[in-house]
Amino acid sequence: MIQVKKPKKQLHLNLFILSTGHHEASWRHPDAQPQLATSLSYYQQLAQTAERGKMDAIFLAEKYRLTPLIKYRVIPQLEAFTLLSAIAAVTERIGLTATASTTYNEPYHIARKFASLDHISGGRAGWNIVTSTGDATAQNFGREHHLDHTVRYARGKEFVEVVKRLWAGWSESSLLIDKQSGLYADIGQIQGAEFNGEFFSVKGALNIPRSPQTHPVLVQAGSSEDGKQFAAELAEVIFTAQNTMEDAALFYADVKSRLRTFGRSEEQLKILPGFIPFVGDTEAEAKDKERELNELAVSEYGIKSLSDLLRVNMFNYPLDGPVPLDDLPSVDEIQGQKARFQLYVDLARRENLTIRELIIRTAGGRGHFTFAGTAVQMADEMQRWLENGAADGFNLMPALLPCGLDDFVNKVVPELQNRGIYRTEYTGATLREHLGLTLDDTFAVRS
Amino acid sequence: MIQVKKPKKQLHLNLFILSTGHHEASWRHPDAQPQLATSLSYYQQLAQTAERGKMDAIFLAEKYRLTPLIKYRVIPQLEAFTLLSAIAAVTERIGLTATASTTYNEPYHIARKFASLDHISGGRAGWNIVTSTGDATAQNFGREHHLDHTVRYARGKEFVEVVKRLWAGWSESSLLIDKQSGLYADIGQIQGAEFNGEFFSVKGALNIPRSPQTHPVLVQAGSSEDGKQFAAELAEVIFTAQNTMEDAALFYADVKSRLRTFGRSEEQLKILPGFIPFVGDTEAEAKDKERELNELAVSEYGIKSLSDLLRVNMFNYPLDGPVPLDDLPSVDEIQGQKARFQLYVDLARRENLTIRELIIRTAGGRGHFTFAGTAVQMADEMQRWLENGAADGFNLMPALLPCGLDDFVNKVVPELQNRGIYRTEYTGATLREHLGLTLDDTFAVRS
Repeated sequence: MIQVKKPKKQLHLNLFILSTGHHEASWRHPDAQPQLATSLSYYQQLAQTAERGKMDAIFLAEKYRLTPLIKYRVIPQLEAFTLLSAIAAVTERIGLTATASTTYNEPYHIARKFASLDHISGGRAGWNIVTSTGDATAQNFGREHHLDHTVRYARGKEFVEVVKRLWAGWSESSLLIDKQSGLYADIGQIQGAEFNGEFFSVKGALNIPRSPQTHPVLVQAGSSEDGKQFAAELAEVIFTAQNTMEDAALFYADVKSRLRTFGRSEEQLKILPGFIPFVGDTEAEAKDKERELNELAVSEYGIKSLSDLLRVNMFNYPLDGPVPLDDLPSVDEIQGQKARFQLYVDLARRENLTIRELIIRTAGGRGHFTFAGTAVQMADEMQRWLENGAADGFNLMPALLPCGLDDFVNKVVPELQNRGIYRTEYTGATLREHLGLTLDDTFAVRS
Repeated sequence: MIQVKKPKKQLHLNLFILSTGHHEASWRHPDAQPQLATSLSYYQQLAQTAERGKMDAIFLAEKYRLTPLIKYRVIPQLEAFTLLSAIAAVTERIGLTATASTTYNEPYHIARKFASLDHISGGRAGWNIVTSTGDATAQNFGREHHLDHTVRYARGKEFVEVVKRLWAGWSESSLLIDKQSGLYADIGQIQGAEFNGEFFSVKGALNIPRSPQTHPVLVQAGSSEDGKQFAAELAEVIFTAQNTMEDAALFYADVKSRLRTFGRSEEQLKILPGFIPFVGDTEAEAKDKERELNELAVSEYGIKSLSDLLRVNMFNYPLDGPVPLDDLPSVDEIQGQKARFQLYVDLARRENLTIRELIIRTAGGRGHFTFAGTAVQMADEMQRWLENGAADGFNLMPALLPCGLDDFVNKVVPELQNRGIYRTEYTGATLREHLGLTLDDTFAVRS
């Protein structure tokens, strides 16, 4: 009797690229090359390594302000679009996900940029949809204060709707390219957005033909109540920060259960928690790598950034005293980074941390899950999350680049492949194919 | 006695890339590949050919609307930035000039994009500053009507001022990158824009360090009174449409004389009229190439686009009757493309053209100077313009791509080089160096 094995659930890996790495002090490491933070070839090489590791995509964050914290650390520096496009030119398969804010952009521009990136890359574009926070950003765009959390999400939803209409405005048959008759396009087959909303009004059609994916993949990274609802309705990938597998499983079940409301199946949204890998030939070596970076952290930076996030001046409290949980505002009062605020509070409360301990615990990646161990231990942990309903894969955030990525691709990727839970070759051409997603009617634009 | 020759004035060449070429019917030509209009490799090859021809830069236009005229012709289709960045990755020296409008953008975004492109390309970025016209564009950005000509230019001036402040906000010494002390940047050496104007208010600093050119090269392409004044104050290169060498010389003298008012020398602004080359081994062969394209033109397209430009429905007039000059509005009433309106009117009046004749005369490149001849004849004509104070070089607009470009680079470029009026090798690394320009104090941001 032939036994048919059920195919194993496959792990999805995304690489979050951030200058010298996600650890705030990574640039101080002897192996770091902070002078290359604006160098194209540096980023091209990272992308090529991720492609060698058969990852679904690379991903770039995007900010529209300079924080004074640049005093102590490398801040992401090249505009995400310009950089991804130059990376597209030297890669073949890997997806390219750019962050673009719905708060300080115009839908027509964003629709054009992603359609262009999708054409240029042969269908590898992804859009990480964010809403911008902070008065410092608002003040670079003629506003005194940033928008309220709920307004930002309402605006974001409308923005995405307009962009999808623009993308969907062209059909397969819009272009005639009939040299004989002299007819280039069938303008009856190109629909304008004809959108009149609360925040945006866009009448015309996109001036770029349908791109290989039609809709670049939609990614979302907010984990607040509004964020989860937004993702369940609109996103195909969600990045999230989770401290433990148990928390991640709760989040996973919560978000997946919301999909039904919008007529979507659980397979239509991939959940990728952040994952900070320290790989060593022994567990001790891996932990040494982590400790080495933590020891490079500048405490003034940690105190400042913790104060910014928790909205309390931590310089007024003893560094080795407890995190002053009772002095913090309630999460309802928080306007930006609500979910991260909650994550830090939960972590400090659960583990009864001092301020110094909380700073060290979050220095490596702002509260994302960190794992130090051998390749086998790491593959075990990733498989555990995958098989216990906590993740569809991970958003890799190496603490130190490029070596943290090299370690992962050289050592952990083969281990995952041996277990049959990770691809050995790309089987699709587009980012949506890598993710095992399809573009179905319920997800396409609704009129 | 040794005679020291005065070095000859050098010709500057810029390639204006437009899908299958600048002739409206180019895509119908047997050699055209209109199906590649959204293909990265097609544009990369054009740029590489221009680089082989040692040109200063390639240039891309940019529109934020779809015109119904796409029924009859290929419309530029990929977003200029995304495309130039992917071209930067496969070229070494040639400049990369992107169009970006000051009417429907935010200075903070535009400053970031050009600083990024300048980093990615090693100092090869140029910005063609335009103001957007037309209600169709306005309606893609939440407005009913486009802005008045004068308001657009006032807004444009303010926009450029903010962008320059952002670029100049970083000094050579802003980055410390001191691993030992843990100090990455000297925030005292990074200045915010601190700009409060009539149209824009931008407080913070750019989040990208000083780029190789500090200020990407500023290009301008309007030839109206406002446009010339804007260029004399702010631009380093001006693209212009001129029908004859005599008109070009008047324009040249006019614009150069305005520079003094702004404390700038005549060398600080290069004037590049559009130039549409048809090269043949004989003059007859060149003229055949031009006629072949003109015969492919669809008259309905020509009548429609002429009606749009001249603001009179030309379908109401006999095609072989005179251009109805008395029925046209006065140039003062024209809000967009004032200079082009005037150019068409002057051309029709001077040569007493019928509507059909005007359409054919402008089909190749919207009124830009067209020259059909052998390589020697063409080099003669270009040299004549150069030496008679009509041009510092040309903005090449091949009617048919890629072959019109191949012809020019293979046949005309060597002829120009033999005459000692065109470089045989790049001598500089940046676009500003190619143009023989320096970034001087009078041009840098004024506080």
